[in-house]
Amino acid sequence: MGQIILASASPRRRELLEQIGIHFEVCPAKGEEVITKKLPHEAVEELAGQKAREVAGMVKSYGASHEELVTPQDILIIGADTVVAYGDEILGKPKDEADAFRMLSMLQGKTHEVYTGVSLVLLDASGKAGELTFHEKTAVSVCSMTEQEIRRYIATGEPFDKAGGYAIQGKCAIYIDKIDGDYNNVVGLPVAAVYQKLKKLGIDLYLW
Amino acid sequence: MGQIILASASPRRRELLEQIGIHFEVCPAKGEEVITKKLPHEAVEELAGQKAREVAGMVKSYGASHEELVTPQDILIIGADTVVAYGDEILGKPKDEADAFRMLSMLQGKTHEVYTGVSLVLLDASGKAGELTFHEKTAVSVCSMTEQEIRRYIATGEPFDKAGGYAIQGKCAIYIDKIDGDYNNVVGLPVAAVYQKLKKLGIDLYLW
Repeated sequence: MGQIILASASPRRRELLEQIGIHFEVCPAKGEEVITKKLPHEAVEELAGQKAREVAGMVKSYGASHEELVTPQDILIIGADTVVAYGDEILGKPKDEADAFRMLSMLQGKTHEVYTGVSLVLLDASGKAGELTFHEKTAVSVCSMTEQEIRRYIATGEPFDKAGGYAIQGKCAIYIDKIDGDYNNVVGLPVAAVYQKLKKLGIDLYLW
Repeated sequence: MGQIILASASPRRRELLEQIGIHFEVCPAKGEEVITKKLPHEAVEELAGQKAREVAGMVKSYGASHEELVTPQDILIIGADTVVAYGDEILGKPKDEADAFRMLSMLQGKTHEVYTGVSLVLLDASGKAGELTFHEKTAVSVCSMTEQEIRRYIATGEPFDKAGGYAIQGKCAIYIDKIDGDYNNVVGLPVAAVYQKLKKLGIDLYLW
């Protein structure tokens, strides 16, 4: 059995990996996120890759400097980044209440897309690395919301650490009319795609 | 403020109402479920109505026999029933491991529909009643599963108390390619539709 490392501090991503019943460690990437891409699917892949490679670098340099401590096992590092896209705009986490209000006012009564980029970095015990990066897109249709409903939702405190200012898995559920795609991709990690892409490479996440 | 009663023993439905942050009591209907309808949307509406009306009857007869104990408040009773439909077949909870295997073998690699019927019975303090019954449909596309994957999933124990033999919100998440519709409808209660339908009637679930 190898080790699985989630390169993200997101409690939602951790909960999703716990939900599917795999054993993993959490080691969040700490580096500054540098976006050079304008298209949402490119931006999330870029950031997911940065996170996974940063943690892979930590693991590898640890291996180089403390060789005797390195356990001879394979390591899978999972990096991910999620954004909301509406029209030409990419929405990350709202800066403040006014920003959350602006985002929710824009999204209410409309359909937008949620993109999660995932980067899977595989290190074998000898230090060799492989990387698979992809993204998933889910369309989310939000019900019409009155100004009062938007303010009441913001008052729950949920919007502030969520891309697009809402949590589909939280109290915003009552305003989600429908989705087209993977639900967990909106929550923050498309665990089906992670499992299925690794399966195509001959890797069983449960036997890693 | 009135009282909200969930007429279901399902822990998933309870969790969904907790997720959206409303206060409610649980009072599961106990009567035998009698299906006289063949179409899935009619069957779930019929069963949801039976559950909600049974609990409403308990509340009303309690009110009649212990008049002094009745609190003068409005009561909203939520009944729900969920089935999986594939082709002409309606799938409830699997009877045993072989039945779960049969269901999952049928659903893997295909798209099926999940129907949840919801019955909202409103009792005002004077004992007058109103009822709103509806259903939601969500299409669920399941990835191809090998026989080994189906057996491994059954071994988690999840299939046995779930319509269609799987839990989208559990370990089956890795096999759900995509959905079209409301996710929580597949989990067991379309909380968005409950909130939005009551809103159209001028009822705010949070101010009930």
